[in-house]
Amino acid sequence: MKIGVLTGGGDAPGLNIAVYTFVKLAERKHEVYAIYHGWRGLLNKEVKRVSSRDLLDFAFSGGTYIRTSRTNPFKDEERARLLESNVKELGLDVVVAIGGDDTLGAAGEAQRRGILDAVGIPKTIDNDVYGTDYTIGFDSAVNAAIEATESFKTTLISHERIGVVEVMGREAGWIALFTGLSTMADAVLIPERPASWDSVAKRVKEAYNERRWALVVVSEGIKEYGGPKDEYGHSRLGGVGNELAEYIERSTGIEARAVVLGHTIRGVPPTAFDRILAVRYATAAYEAVENGRYGVMVAYSNGDIAYVPIVDVVGKNRLVSGYWMRLYETYWPDLAG
Amino acid sequence: MKIGVLTGGGDAPGLNIAVYTFVKLAERKHEVYAIYHGWRGLLNKEVKRVSSRDLLDFAFSGGTYIRTSRTNPFKDEERARLLESNVKELGLDVVVAIGGDDTLGAAGEAQRRGILDAVGIPKTIDNDVYGTDYTIGFDSAVNAAIEATESFKTTLISHERIGVVEVMGREAGWIALFTGLSTMADAVLIPERPASWDSVAKRVKEAYNERRWALVVVSEGIKEYGGPKDEYGHSRLGGVGNELAEYIERSTGIEARAVVLGHTIRGVPPTAFDRILAVRYATAAYEAVENGRYGVMVAYSNGDIAYVPIVDVVGKNRLVSGYWMRLYETYWPDLAG
Amino acid sequence: MKIGVLTGGGDAPGLNIAVYTFVKLAERKHEVYAIYHGWRGLLNKEVKRVSSRDLLDFAFSGGTYIRTSRTNPFKDEERARLLESNVKELGLDVVVAIGGDDTLGAAGEAQRRGILDAVGIPKTIDNDVYGTDYTIGFDSAVNAAIEATESFKTTLISHERIGVVEVMGREAGWIALFTGLSTMADAVLIPERPASWDSVAKRVKEAYNERRWALVVVSEGIKEYGGPKDEYGHSRLGGVGNELAEYIERSTGIEARAVVLGHTIRGVPPTAFDRILAVRYATAAYEAVENGRYGVMVAYSNGDIAYVPIVDVVGKNRLVSGYWMRLYETYWPDLAG
Amino acid sequence: MKIGVLTGGGDAPGLNIAVYTFVKLAERKHEVYAIYHGWRGLLNKEVKRVSSRDLLDFAFSGGTYIRTSRTNPFKDEERARLLESNVKELGLDVVVAIGGDDTLGAAGEAQRRGILDAVGIPKTIDNDVYGTDYTIGFDSAVNAAIEATESFKTTLISHERIGVVEVMGREAGWIALFTGLSTMADAVLIPERPASWDSVAKRVKEAYNERRWALVVVSEGIKEYGGPKDEYGHSRLGGVGNELAEYIERSTGIEARAVVLGHTIRGVPPTAFDRILAVRYATAAYEAVENGRYGVMVAYSNGDIAYVPIVDVVGKNRLVSGYWMRLYETYWPDLAG
Repeated sequence: MKIGVLTGGGDAPGLNIAVYTFVKLAERKHEVYAIYHGWRGLLNKEVKRVSSRDLLDFAFSGGTYIRTSRTNPFKDEERARLLESNVKELGLDVVVAIGGDDTLGAAGEAQRRGILDAVGIPKTIDNDVYGTDYTIGFDSAVNAAIEATESFKTTLISHERIGVVEVMGREAGWIALFTGLSTMADAVLIPERPASWDSVAKRVKEAYNERRWALVVVSEGIKEYGGPKDEYGHSRLGGVGNELAEYIERSTGIEARAVVLGHTIRGVPPTAFDRILAVRYATAAYEAVENGRYGVMVAYSNGDIAYVPIVDVVGKNRLVSGYWMRLYETYWPDLAG
Repeated sequence: MKIGVLTGGGDAPGLNIAVYTFVKLAERKHEVYAIYHGWRGLLNKEVKRVSSRDLLDFAFSGGTYIRTSRTNPFKDEERARLLESNVKELGLDVVVAIGGDDTLGAAGEAQRRGILDAVGIPKTIDNDVYGTDYTIGFDSAVNAAIEATESFKTTLISHERIGVVEVMGREAGWIALFTGLSTMADAVLIPERPASWDSVAKRVKEAYNERRWALVVVSEGIKEYGGPKDEYGHSRLGGVGNELAEYIERSTGIEARAVVLGHTIRGVPPTAFDRILAVRYATAAYEAVENGRYGVMVAYSNGDIAYVPIVDVVGKNRLVSGYWMRLYETYWPDLAG
Repeated sequence: MKIGVLTGGGDAPGLNIAVYTFVKLAERKHEVYAIYHGWRGLLNKEVKRVSSRDLLDFAFSGGTYIRTSRTNPFKDEERARLLESNVKELGLDVVVAIGGDDTLGAAGEAQRRGILDAVGIPKTIDNDVYGTDYTIGFDSAVNAAIEATESFKTTLISHERIGVVEVMGREAGWIALFTGLSTMADAVLIPERPASWDSVAKRVKEAYNERRWALVVVSEGIKEYGGPKDEYGHSRLGGVGNELAEYIERSTGIEARAVVLGHTIRGVPPTAFDRILAVRYATAAYEAVENGRYGVMVAYSNGDIAYVPIVDVVGKNRLVSGYWMRLYETYWPDLAG
Repeated sequence: MKIGVLTGGGDAPGLNIAVYTFVKLAERKHEVYAIYHGWRGLLNKEVKRVSSRDLLDFAFSGGTYIRTSRTNPFKDEERARLLESNVKELGLDVVVAIGGDDTLGAAGEAQRRGILDAVGIPKTIDNDVYGTDYTIGFDSAVNAAIEATESFKTTLISHERIGVVEVMGREAGWIALFTGLSTMADAVLIPERPASWDSVAKRVKEAYNERRWALVVVSEGIKEYGGPKDEYGHSRLGGVGNELAEYIERSTGIEARAVVLGHTIRGVPPTAFDRILAVRYATAAYEAVENGRYGVMVAYSNGDIAYVPIVDVVGKNRLVSGYWMRLYETYWPDLAG
């Protein structure tokens, strides 16, 4: 068979090892092609046969060596037709699409239309892909966020300030929750659970009074924030953190500072967890191909690798709820106001 | 209630956050005591009331702030009686014991004899505690092993050598397997799966011929190694790695070097995974106490927190098998000889 | 003698080891006192006798364990009189002041007025203290900036973008220059050398055309930037980076992104260079005290430890010039116009 | 001109940036060739024209992308003649040799014989090249040694043990001295200053009694150690550390452990200091070529870049002495016995 591999959407640590591992397995029996720049590579025929040896030098680095884009191949029918004719011309039998909701959505649509057979692998540092407990990149981003937060803490302690760490997360508060639990922050604000900023200020003031510093972690996308939004209606990274710090400073009379953890936490080298997850997903994706099991996304569910139909996961977000929300409430019970 | 907390056995990253978090929850309603130096602290009455505030400064560091020991309080009946009378005198109702097989075994025995009510939390960088998928410290150790292996690789590439990384793991090959998968090593040797050194040499020679370097990861405790053993019949860390490197060098004619990853990978700051696991375990341990659920170890099973009777887990090792062994065989099918 | 030690101004990695080492030497013969919160601690009598043992637990962490403030004890004559009477009451003979221009300036003034005998140690991540080649904290901050920049680069490469890294440096471009040289950035903008943004855009476009990504490093305080200023007339961190990225995007038609490296790079653990520098400075400060050599700042000059009169260094900035400016021009010759 | 670049001897962090930067400057006017595997590459004609673009992907990684060897091209006259004829055939005008004593020695000899014009750049993690204060790789190795030592310390504290860290350094104690100062170890043993092991044990016992842990740093090559030597008469890494730990354990009755920091600390990514040093050296080497200044090694002397005749530096080691020995004695005055 001729199998193509692509990565789409925002880059994430672990993508390279997923691609490398898949190629290492698949090349034993099949021709494997790198599709460059995500779905755009199929519209532009940026496709090249690769061996695992070609990919080895960058297999363990952050980012994605085969590049990425946010191009939607089904934006209009013209594009869709171009996609179809290119796939035919290139003779691709299967495409393994590694990405978040948009990238996987295109894979599902291509499968539905019969353009190609698709297997999806979930990736996003936000960990909000529906149908799986973990996505490639999340653990690495959280580790980077923790390291930055620990550094920030030493300057908070030295200057006796309150600190606000703003992290990514427009719909889902996973990065904020995991960073907050990992550093036992005094308050954590996530999109799934509106908080009263007054209660937050009260809570951090108590903590400050006890030890002369305090720490808040906030998701960029918390719903009670009425600040400027981008074209998709999302808060923009860098908006809410500073505003929350200013609010806290005004309301407590204690000096407060914010840091925004953006691009620098997404480009780090992959952690053990993301490497292992990438290897497991790539192995499972290869087994799906071998078994002719198409239209599915590999997933992590109840501690195990599973397959879920792509159509069941696209267009939704996995949000903090259930066990994780109870954990949230165990540590920050009093922020709702 | 009066609740004591102790850590026993080898130290591991994440212990401090487990202790800190448990105290943070329990102090809301109970008196909490740190028992210093593991079970030895109950024999010597090294017990002190603590608040989470006392523990905060070291909560996120590696090691264990309340110290540890390998003392077995049931080594003889005299000790057991001393333990019992001290527990009575101190008025401790419950002890939360964080440790590996030995530490948990003592907790189970104390419960069985009615000396105290015990809740166990599994910890060991080797990840070989029976009854749980993950133990506190494993993820941190693997991340440290990966970082050291990546550094070692650059010198292998520069000098065009074969490298052997020896990691901890006397009965179970978890660290070797995870390090090997994470770096896509050319060969991985684990205690659960004897390998022919001849096949290993052949395999790495092929890899070397392709790219002028090759990498092997080996557990200290592989069974086919007949070298010197310690008092417990275990191979000693630092034995097998060098010998395997010499074997490979002799048999392939290619320069080979070994590194041994020992104490330096166990003292690192805890990773996100270990922090979250520690928080989850501490929370679950506290809930067990609240619900009067004693004689149990908190565990990670099928992606979820669970409780298992301590008596069911002690005296056994969780070994690489099932899914993980199939993953092993997918990447290193040809080493058995 | 009774010797006090204080740290003032922004915290920096290596402060704790300077304090610890000084105390370790001085306590052999003298009474040593920690003055908390910089000069404010003398106004408020926040002074406590300490031993090196008291300081050991935090000696190798970032930040400053004895806390810091920006309080100027000579803001008015009332404060100055309070300072004088407190010093007399506390019986302090000598104060070792570790800080940047403001903190050292106060030390010089106290010496001039005969309030106390002072020895200064230069500290600031910006490396702009006059009279010394290196200040405590600079090397750590640069290492952290490089690590963040390398992470940023992987996402630039993956998405094929131009990246702008904004770093601290209001008057002096040291962090930008060292970060730029260390990553061989395509353009570096520093306050000492106005650059035409047009030329910068042209230069990065050439680099982009060759390899589909490009990197710019910019100091927050570049003079050609007319954006919002703070109360001291300085550009605010986070202003220029985004604006430069937008300018480049508009003028080249290539997607550009900015990151701002602020508080997170100042709280990191100290590097080898900063640890050694702190030990050397602390040793030299102690020798100054032993020799009754007061009113001086220890310095690093021509590879050696030296003493310079505090009055000769305050009120000035050490700027990029001479050899370092020639190095700048060797790599970025064409940005001026 | 046709200019060749080679790296010889043990790999070190920063080599790639030195090569990259030199090529970046030299390619503006000249043809530049990578000579692979050190001097061996001239005997085997493993020489390829390169551009900085070719080298960019690995410019900031540890190790040496153009590979290395320990081949001495003047081992016998046959080799020397082969070297001469190959250089003539390849038409190389100048060779920039980056290495330690052996590699630089060959450069000096080739210059003396008129085979080629040579410029040397000093490199070795041991920092013992005569005629320069710093060599490429030293700062990175020390930082890695410090990080490993800090990790080791947490396990020493947790288990209440004495720890011995053995680091590289056969003739010179630079890594041990810098690691010891940076961590304020209780005892540091270096080849330049014989120590009585009895005094060492006494000293660490005092420290242990105060805080229940203690730390010793030792160079592999200390002269009072009579253990097994390699073919060159050097102690072997991994010999002395364990023996010293056993000695201390026997003589103090306190549990002691050793770690050996070998290959893993030499392959790390280059630090800021090594990156900047590599850029400065490469720039200076290029200026030497431009000015026809041959037979020299670029050096770091009194804080400045300098040129020294290669013949003046080969066959000697830069040892700890003068200021640095006084610093040693300030902190560890009582170890000579």
